[in-house]
Amino acid sequence: MTAKYEVPYYGVIFTSLLSETDEEYAHYNQILEDEAKKYPGFLGMDSARTGLGISVSYWKDTATIQAWKKHTDHIYAQQKGIDKWYERYIVRIVRIEREYEFIRKS
Amino acid sequence: MTAKYEVPYYGVIFTSLLSETDEEYAHYNQILEDEAKKYPGFLGMDSARTGLGISVSYWKDTATIQAWKKHTDHIYAQQKGIDKWYERYIVRIVRIEREYEFIRKS
Repeated sequence: MTAKYEVPYYGVIFTSLLSETDEEYAHYNQILEDEAKKYPGFLGMDSARTGLGISVSYWKDTATIQAWKKHTDHIYAQQKGIDKWYERYIVRIVRIEREYEFIRKS
Repeated sequence: MTAKYEVPYYGVIFTSLLSETDEEYAHYNQILEDEAKKYPGFLGMDSARTGLGISVSYWKDTATIQAWKKHTDHIYAQQKGIDKWYERYIVRIVRIEREYEFIRKS
């Protein structure tokens, strides 16, 4: 689970329904996370799927999000996603304005 | 899966790790969704859990988010969440600035 950061920062909410996955799908999920981590502006990512999938990646600025969108591996995955993996998805670019955290005291 | 809306609008990203759930937990998840739907400013909600849970609710404005935070059932659930259900959570209030959608043509 990602940590809190200093607001404001940015996020990409990727909500999806799968169509047809393959070996490359799992492989590229890992590649994309590894490659995203190489950007100094990348802060972290959370993912979950219950039929519907939600992934949220967090970024220091929108310039890094734009650069990431044009990364070679990411472009390949975007095309493959449209050609095969996804039935439907929505990408939302958001600005995190406020946040708070609860951690249970053990 | 929620639809696209007209930007800008607002979202609440709730990321959580569970501690100890009970019958009331499932019951309140349903109550909260039903009650949220009664607000004209409520647009929709997506949820998924793979160990880590991510729920994103969407709202027309921040005033409705503030009102929802003070709803009696929601306050009860917030307290119960801290007392029992959650190990950890982060609530992020975000502004959706841009979005795009893909829908497979059948």
